[in-house]
Amino acid sequence: MFNYNMLLDDLGSKQYQHLQTELLQQNPADIAGFLETLESEKAVVIFRMLTKDTASEVFANLFPETQRSIIEALTDKEIAAIINELYLDDAADFIEEMPAGIVKKVLANAREDTRAQINSLLQYPDNSAGSIMTVEFVDMPGDITIAEAFGRIRKVGPDKETIYTCYVTDGTRHLEGVVSVRKLLLSDSGARVRDVMDTVFVAARTLDDQEAVAHQFKKYDLLSLPVVDKEDRLVGIITIDDIIDVVQEEATEDFEKMAAMRPSEKPYLRTGILSLARNRITWLLILMISGMITGGIMRQYTAAIAAVPLLVTFVPMITGTGGNAGSQSSTVVIRGMALNEIGAQDFVRIWWKELRTSLVVGALLSAVNFVRVYLQEGDMMLGFAVSASMLLTVIIAQTLGGLLPMVARVCRADPAVMAAPLISTMVDAVSLIIFFSIARLILPV
Amino acid sequence: MFNYNMLLDDLGSKQYQHLQTELLQQNPADIAGFLETLESEKAVVIFRMLTKDTASEVFANLFPETQRSIIEALTDKEIAAIINELYLDDAADFIEEMPAGIVKKVLANAREDTRAQINSLLQYPDNSAGSIMTVEFVDMPGDITIAEAFGRIRKVGPDKETIYTCYVTDGTRHLEGVVSVRKLLLSDSGARVRDVMDTVFVAARTLDDQEAVAHQFKKYDLLSLPVVDKEDRLVGIITIDDIIDVVQEEATEDFEKMAAMRPSEKPYLRTGILSLARNRITWLLILMISGMITGGIMRQYTAAIAAVPLLVTFVPMITGTGGNAGSQSSTVVIRGMALNEIGAQDFVRIWWKELRTSLVVGALLSAVNFVRVYLQEGDMMLGFAVSASMLLTVIIAQTLGGLLPMVARVCRADPAVMAAPLISTMVDAVSLIIFFSIARLILPV
Repeated sequence: MFNYNMLLDDLGSKQYQHLQTELLQQNPADIAGFLETLESEKAVVIFRMLTKDTASEVFANLFPETQRSIIEALTDKEIAAIINELYLDDAADFIEEMPAGIVKKVLANAREDTRAQINSLLQYPDNSAGSIMTVEFVDMPGDITIAEAFGRIRKVGPDKETIYTCYVTDGTRHLEGVVSVRKLLLSDSGARVRDVMDTVFVAARTLDDQEAVAHQFKKYDLLSLPVVDKEDRLVGIITIDDIIDVVQEEATEDFEKMAAMRPSEKPYLRTGILSLARNRITWLLILMISGMITGGIMRQYTAAIAAVPLLVTFVPMITGTGGNAGSQSSTVVIRGMALNEIGAQDFVRIWWKELRTSLVVGALLSAVNFVRVYLQEGDMMLGFAVSASMLLTVIIAQTLGGLLPMVARVCRADPAVMAAPLISTMVDAVSLIIFFSIARLILPV
Repeated sequence: MFNYNMLLDDLGSKQYQHLQTELLQQNPADIAGFLETLESEKAVVIFRMLTKDTASEVFANLFPETQRSIIEALTDKEIAAIINELYLDDAADFIEEMPAGIVKKVLANAREDTRAQINSLLQYPDNSAGSIMTVEFVDMPGDITIAEAFGRIRKVGPDKETIYTCYVTDGTRHLEGVVSVRKLLLSDSGARVRDVMDTVFVAARTLDDQEAVAHQFKKYDLLSLPVVDKEDRLVGIITIDDIIDVVQEEATEDFEKMAAMRPSEKPYLRTGILSLARNRITWLLILMISGMITGGIMRQYTAAIAAVPLLVTFVPMITGTGGNAGSQSSTVVIRGMALNEIGAQDFVRIWWKELRTSLVVGALLSAVNFVRVYLQEGDMMLGFAVSASMLLTVIIAQTLGGLLPMVARVCRADPAVMAAPLISTMVDAVSLIIFFSIARLILPV
């Protein structure tokens, strides 16, 4: 167990020896969490107590702000030790978050090959396979024996992010096959790697979207995936720990977009007020202007409202239920598309499914309304107007909600935009027109 | 590449030999995807062409309906081959989805030890660590050498779900340490396992929530995690491929709850109309009734509405914007809690952050409204009423939206319930009261 208080006591009473012993027994992720709670000078003092190996692992687990304050306090030699020890994908992630001055200082202290590799990783676009891959993998020729393969793993393994999948390449770095350490261990040590390797394997290209890569991991239960360039040469691998982050990031992005926000770059508690406001304001403005249009529609019916002011008291319920019904449908379809369970070819199936579901749901809600209005107002025609509007609104809301995300996908827009806020705003307008049209038809307004 | 059409041609022209050769070169997940597209008799024909190993892997990748139709067509001997070959966690997942008749038939054909282990896995509650663990892991005593450890891995490894982390236990199955194959490979083969194993490790208990387990995997970059019982005896392990499923399932559940639906048990396209309707109707009814209350509030202001019918045309915009603003805040907080980034201790920080953000956002939206209403209606007091209502509504919506999910957590309810639909309905009522109260105060109504 990680005992923050004991470590703080040690720090307060300057029992550095005891503190160091305790620290080095902890998991690097926990040490990083502890450093995040300290003021930056204290964090630096403790960071310096770590061994080189642990220091780089802890460093990779820190938030960018803390990484920055530590780097600013370290000597060139200490920086060199960290940057050369970091896994290259972690190093590239860190560099990407730093201001230019720090980047220059860090890269100047990196070994030349490290610097070149970090620079090449930084060139891949955000959210591409290239941007999440690492170039530290175990490769080997196919004509060595399994015993020789283990020799190679022992030699190059300590610096590699994973050794459990090895990549068999020819002289020009073309990927010929993959072989797991499991397969190597369970095979005869005299056999050739080529004879036990898998030649049917999944690979990604550097520019593939990270979400598509995550689907491959899930579908094939992979631990790692080779990444090849346009000429099919092996340039890196993606490991599963980074895929969990991708899955969570993509879901978070969808949550934000579906609540009418621009995706944020940092966790909520680390995002400033102005960034939060900026992420929220664009869509609120767009939706507010759409709300004005809805108001304009309502203006067409002011005569009816003046004649029967009671009518407007049903508006919040009808528009609200329509919005909720529509966002239920759009949510399941958007999520189904994100999980690759629904594709463009399912358009008619979804229309048919939503139509029938909305009939069931709408009929029930509309029956409840008829009874309620009739009992409360004693007006059967009013009850009929409200319940018919409810039924029609739910049907339109759920079919629109189910289909619009698919239309967005076909138009190469992000389906997540067609979520609750936009659907509700559209349904508001539609349901108002339905309600007042029916009311004008069958009521004395 | 998986060529569906060629395989279908082979099937049509009864070229079974060629079909089999082609099939066995494919990834089991792709073969399963292919079987899903066929009628059940054809699927069974093809399934029977698979080798025992491949058959069980393909079987684990099928949907329950397809598993069932295959099992129903197989002989007892074929069933025995599959069930004994499946990983035990996959077997338990499969059994859980089958009707009693099938379960009986399958378990009757399982080996006695397999049957006992499946039964013990089935006893853990849904979403617990026990329900996603497997009991097939590599364990070893600490006092053997690394060379002996590899001997043991080679011997027991073929049946285990992962061999990359080995578990060191004493005579009474208490977990003493964990050691990775990486560590074993990179250490001197004469050393004792006890001397290279990690004694600082993370473990879960059988009844831990799967979401908490997923957080551990993410935090510590784990590939697998030991699961211990109340007496700290090792009973199983959880592997990372199952964690990706957990992360996606939990996110899907939150998407559904946040759109006012009961979580569904199957993918959308495999869920029937009545189940879809059932998942949607409860919350729609609750929210519709709340919408009636909002209507009742509006009824208090029918005199004002009759005096100035124009007033109601601003209602959709104000309530809509309030709902959107509130759900933005509730979404970021609910997601932050799901990712363990926000806890109950952050209540005041979130209140303060949301208050300031809503001031910025609200001031801007309210300024736009003042200008718009003044230009359009030429009425400064009306402009003031609308823009003041907008500002107050946004402030209340975003602070409520940010805080209510935390209140739900403190009350041990699911924060995801405090999402867009419920927040919008509450904000509808509040914003109506604000708008009409201000209107009554400063306008001639």
